[in-house]
Amino acid sequence: MKNILIGLFLFVSISNAQNRLRDYGMEIGVLKTGPLNALTDVLGTKVGHTTIIQGDSVRTGVTAILPHSGNIFQEKVPAAIYIGNGFGKLAGYTQVKELGNLETPIILTNTLSVATAVNAIVGYTLNQNGNENVRSVNAVVGETNDGYLNDIRGRHITGTHVLQAIENAQTGEVEEGNVGAGTGTICFGFKGGIGTSSRVLPSKSGGYTVGVLVQSNFGGILKIAGVDVGKQLGHYSDSFKYSPDGSCMMVVMTNAPLDSRNLERLAKRAMLGLARTGGIASNGSGDYVIALSTAKECRIPYQSDNPIQSVPTLRNEAMTPLFLATIEATEEAILNSLFAAEKITGHKGRTIDALPKKEVLELLKKAGKI
Amino acid sequence: MKNILIGLFLFVSISNAQNRLRDYGMEIGVLKTGPLNALTDVLGTKVGHTTIIQGDSVRTGVTAILPHSGNIFQEKVPAAIYIGNGFGKLAGYTQVKELGNLETPIILTNTLSVATAVNAIVGYTLNQNGNENVRSVNAVVGETNDGYLNDIRGRHITGTHVLQAIENAQTGEVEEGNVGAGTGTICFGFKGGIGTSSRVLPSKSGGYTVGVLVQSNFGGILKIAGVDVGKQLGHYSDSFKYSPDGSCMMVVMTNAPLDSRNLERLAKRAMLGLARTGGIASNGSGDYVIALSTAKECRIPYQSDNPIQSVPTLRNEAMTPLFLATIEATEEAILNSLFAAEKITGHKGRTIDALPKKEVLELLKKAGKI
Amino acid sequence: MKNILIGLFLFVSISNAQNRLRDYGMEIGVLKTGPLNALTDVLGTKVGHTTIIQGDSVRTGVTAILPHSGNIFQEKVPAAIYIGNGFGKLAGYTQVKELGNLETPIILTNTLSVATAVNAIVGYTLNQNGNENVRSVNAVVGETNDGYLNDIRGRHITGTHVLQAIENAQTGEVEEGNVGAGTGTICFGFKGGIGTSSRVLPSKSGGYTVGVLVQSNFGGILKIAGVDVGKQLGHYSDSFKYSPDGSCMMVVMTNAPLDSRNLERLAKRAMLGLARTGGIASNGSGDYVIALSTAKECRIPYQSDNPIQSVPTLRNEAMTPLFLATIEATEEAILNSLFAAEKITGHKGRTIDALPKKEVLELLKKAGKI
Amino acid sequence: MKNILIGLFLFVSISNAQNRLRDYGMEIGVLKTGPLNALTDVLGTKVGHTTIIQGDSVRTGVTAILPHSGNIFQEKVPAAIYIGNGFGKLAGYTQVKELGNLETPIILTNTLSVATAVNAIVGYTLNQNGNENVRSVNAVVGETNDGYLNDIRGRHITGTHVLQAIENAQTGEVEEGNVGAGTGTICFGFKGGIGTSSRVLPSKSGGYTVGVLVQSNFGGILKIAGVDVGKQLGHYSDSFKYSPDGSCMMVVMTNAPLDSRNLERLAKRAMLGLARTGGIASNGSGDYVIALSTAKECRIPYQSDNPIQSVPTLRNEAMTPLFLATIEATEEAILNSLFAAEKITGHKGRTIDALPKKEVLELLKKAGKI
Repeated sequence: MKNILIGLFLFVSISNAQNRLRDYGMEIGVLKTGPLNALTDVLGTKVGHTTIIQGDSVRTGVTAILPHSGNIFQEKVPAAIYIGNGFGKLAGYTQVKELGNLETPIILTNTLSVATAVNAIVGYTLNQNGNENVRSVNAVVGETNDGYLNDIRGRHITGTHVLQAIENAQTGEVEEGNVGAGTGTICFGFKGGIGTSSRVLPSKSGGYTVGVLVQSNFGGILKIAGVDVGKQLGHYSDSFKYSPDGSCMMVVMTNAPLDSRNLERLAKRAMLGLARTGGIASNGSGDYVIALSTAKECRIPYQSDNPIQSVPTLRNEAMTPLFLATIEATEEAILNSLFAAEKITGHKGRTIDALPKKEVLELLKKAGKI
Repeated sequence: MKNILIGLFLFVSISNAQNRLRDYGMEIGVLKTGPLNALTDVLGTKVGHTTIIQGDSVRTGVTAILPHSGNIFQEKVPAAIYIGNGFGKLAGYTQVKELGNLETPIILTNTLSVATAVNAIVGYTLNQNGNENVRSVNAVVGETNDGYLNDIRGRHITGTHVLQAIENAQTGEVEEGNVGAGTGTICFGFKGGIGTSSRVLPSKSGGYTVGVLVQSNFGGILKIAGVDVGKQLGHYSDSFKYSPDGSCMMVVMTNAPLDSRNLERLAKRAMLGLARTGGIASNGSGDYVIALSTAKECRIPYQSDNPIQSVPTLRNEAMTPLFLATIEATEEAILNSLFAAEKITGHKGRTIDALPKKEVLELLKKAGKI
Repeated sequence: MKNILIGLFLFVSISNAQNRLRDYGMEIGVLKTGPLNALTDVLGTKVGHTTIIQGDSVRTGVTAILPHSGNIFQEKVPAAIYIGNGFGKLAGYTQVKELGNLETPIILTNTLSVATAVNAIVGYTLNQNGNENVRSVNAVVGETNDGYLNDIRGRHITGTHVLQAIENAQTGEVEEGNVGAGTGTICFGFKGGIGTSSRVLPSKSGGYTVGVLVQSNFGGILKIAGVDVGKQLGHYSDSFKYSPDGSCMMVVMTNAPLDSRNLERLAKRAMLGLARTGGIASNGSGDYVIALSTAKECRIPYQSDNPIQSVPTLRNEAMTPLFLATIEATEEAILNSLFAAEKITGHKGRTIDALPKKEVLELLKKAGKI
Repeated sequence: MKNILIGLFLFVSISNAQNRLRDYGMEIGVLKTGPLNALTDVLGTKVGHTTIIQGDSVRTGVTAILPHSGNIFQEKVPAAIYIGNGFGKLAGYTQVKELGNLETPIILTNTLSVATAVNAIVGYTLNQNGNENVRSVNAVVGETNDGYLNDIRGRHITGTHVLQAIENAQTGEVEEGNVGAGTGTICFGFKGGIGTSSRVLPSKSGGYTVGVLVQSNFGGILKIAGVDVGKQLGHYSDSFKYSPDGSCMMVVMTNAPLDSRNLERLAKRAMLGLARTGGIASNGSGDYVIALSTAKECRIPYQSDNPIQSVPTLRNEAMTPLFLATIEATEEAILNSLFAAEKITGHKGRTIDALPKKEVLELLKKAGKI
């Protein structure tokens, strides 16, 4: 319980500061953001965190994402997962690929706690009203490895932590930085964490919203709005200085009516957003993108008397603006995770610094970005 | 504990009877079997079961397969997984796909216990000598749904059951039928379970051994050695009579030196063997094939001073006999699972009969097969 | 021109004989066939052949398949291609995979004439009324290698031959055996060729029709209705006697309203039908399945004012009967290709015998199949 | 012939100018380039162009890439193709995927000339010494659509043009810009074309060379060395101004000993390089990456007495520096294509301007890049 309070405290302290990219006057890309500039701009979407900070060594957590407030198993949503680099333990891939839908909340956590989260989600689903006869549940759980700052081998996450993240889930603003599944992650050698962003298309392109949330824990050579900050700071994770390994989990949601084929194409574009931040999808990085459509008329009932469902589907030709929106929102979500994350000391006394904002802002100013 | 004893008792009672296809004078295909006609003909391979039969409602279990007796994490083996039909919860797919190797024992169990098995395997691996610094483990766990005969929602499998299966693992004969992960499975409407078979290539084709083990739990219209037994008995699972859903897990191992690309091709052929038994890979069937090479010189050390490994690799042109061996051994392994399995009563008093051998043998005699 | 006449003559002579499996009283599977037991039972579908028999050495041809009589480029159909074994030169795969549709007739021909066929189809499409501004065409052309009987290196197929096949395309009965793309093919060591079959689902399963057409040119150990004819005749293409290489092209069409994801799943099942005939997808076999939905309301207009199309889509749960239909029709189409094909002498004086029907029928009788 | 001369003339005029990114003092990334900063830094690699400029409307061409000077069919090289976005007509994908190797020169050309190029390559291969018995050839031909500047529907490319490109192929410097397959392409709304770059790893990372060549013909919002030039110039191809469609063909070669699995991973990273230039892989863009290893000891003989080949293979862990090299070289190759390309007027009097270097350089100066 105590850890949760700490998590909330951190949030409050952060939210008073300038902790998002746009607070500094920077813009990423050419499209407008949604009102919250967050995954939750996709209406109905909820995000919840459990932040677990215990003693000297536990720096980890759980983030839960719910595409709607109903019974997700009974009202599945179209979904796809793209494997940017498969050195990871994400659960649920093959069924999403085969059936084209998601039937549980999405959980993000650490590498060695995926199974604990799957068990919790299975229990959660079996126990939901209306699911009394369910005997098969495909939990989708993503992860990155926080084992540098967190005693990951201790496997401190419990099913209760997972259920708390679901309970904590809410619409509205999304906490970023050292929260939930981002509590102990490292990105470009700085403290990473949870980040989010969104884009809204012009009405002539359908007016759809695309939201992205990331759990950033990967390497490369950091670029901010195209400025090669990592190179200039001499702080970069090409293979010659320190390991760029880690991972990045990306969740892309949209209210556009997409089938799983076009959702997979959308998911693929998130990797292009990651690339713009200097990410290189190193050998050891488990980079996955989970994409969903929340369009109500696209939901897939678990059971139906009618074997045919008439589904509105966006044509291939209309996908490009959504691709651009995904790229921009992913880039900004990753940068937001860096701007929000705070210095932390954890397992074995290891410390990871936050992005050195002062130096960074100077570099950005020099490059004419702010 | 008591359940384990019952499991062993069943085995003993079965092993005295004619419970394999070849005991009746039938042959599948044209290639010779190995001495045991089992997965364990691939030398070094071990198989272990935990059979869990408790009270009225628990009919489930765990099967563990180990490619060698060393520390698998430290000495990984080339591997591939083919998704025949992805309506399943198999854990570990994406990393095997990306990196081309297996780093843990393979566990088979029931659908809702995959996460429990993953957690057990993660613990098993973290605790092995030499793995003190390991912070990332890709457990490969397959499953089929035994929820008709087993109280699957009760999730009765524990980590201890999983570890017992590994401890029980041994070379030599492999128990078949209602054991381990096959305790509560149903195949073509009859009692299914664990089955195994092997083939040995002529020396001019390399003399390699291919072993297959299946957890049979799927439907269709049963054919035995090509004879349409299911149709003639009027007992078949096309969609018009009863659900052909379920799943089939297939494990294919060989001592041929194969890289992951050719292992994936090999894995794909197991589905052709399943097809020969009348399987149809129905919508609800999670059909997966895990393929491994046990060739010693192909093992991949976890860490190495040399970034280059010189690996003997079979040429594409030499694959065809291995494909045929895989098809034949898969067909026979499935049939062996049916011949070995016994009638069982389980959850909610439901009973599934064994293959009616008397009628079946008459049909086979009539068709000139025996 | 002369060769075409010869082709027609062959057809006439064949059509008077008992040249289909069912003419001998045999049945494959449990589902009913359509009225023609052919791909063309899927209404609107047309098939046309150009048979090219010239001099001593040219034994090849072209088969064209049209899903509807309109401008296919302007009214695309949902499509998927499954790669059973990718040792082949099929054109058009990646765009079908990405966009989920087909925009040209399907052409089947020999391996070294794929490009000639693509060029012909591109020209055909550019020249169609309404396509004046088209600058991109994804021709789908499949092939098998008829280089044993045909002087394939001579590349005798011309664009005119391809266009003739399209012109020849008609609804109604489909010629089988040594016609079109099947003129010079070999299957299980016997003369193969074009074969077709269909299934109609019971009305409670939607009453849909599934049609399959194959160009059979592969090996393995022949089974007819499960009877191991190849083994009993000692005439089999395991790797120890002669090359089982070659290929099989399979086209699966249905009037069920399927999206490309479920069409890919359907396509995958055709390989299970091939397996039932004893096919093994040998290393050298290029085995591909092209699947289409002809449902009118699923057609995809090239251009549309409305970026959203409301598409009726069959639910995953309703797929199983279609899977079974595909498996059965593929098995029977392959067998029909063997029953229809006639002994032929070609390139370098090589002769391939037809299936020895007398001996085969005796074996089938002995097994109680007729 | 005349057109060829014009092509050469253009080249000469360009080669005297500052026409590569680095001529302006800019650097991309952190790794060193090879001596030529070109694909041909991978020793043994040859590149040849046929530039076809005829009358008012023909602005197209062919580029050929040869991994070695021997008979490629007899000495195949490990290969993989990654589909960034499959709206394209690249030939040869499925066999490369299945068998893991390349057996012909790579040809790049325009969309409607792929089949002509395939036919030329098939003829070229059949006619090579030692290939007298070859009856199956998998030509790899990529394309982008130059139909805005070129009368693509006229299909002006002939087999002779293709063979000329092969004959023209040489080691050493590579022409860039409006040459070969890049003659009529458009990139970010400016004249695109052929571009190339390379990277050499530090010796502690193996000292390997990675070379990239691109045929740039796509859209998005141009970034040069991270500077959002496209946005600042108000000249960008988000979907709201003009079509970002087109395509990008990328060829990645390395002398590192890689198997096809790791080559596919390498190929995937080229898309991250494309992303850094502002590319978005729009719906209509056919973006493909062909990756090869030229390591001599990894070549795969067409025929061999030994069914086992002992192949040196780089470990997964050693891939990261190669990934970074691929990303950097792809980014720079695309930018080089823009810097080298010249204003051109073509089909229907349409003109596409070159990158406005003066304004661009000012923007780069303002951003502190030069």
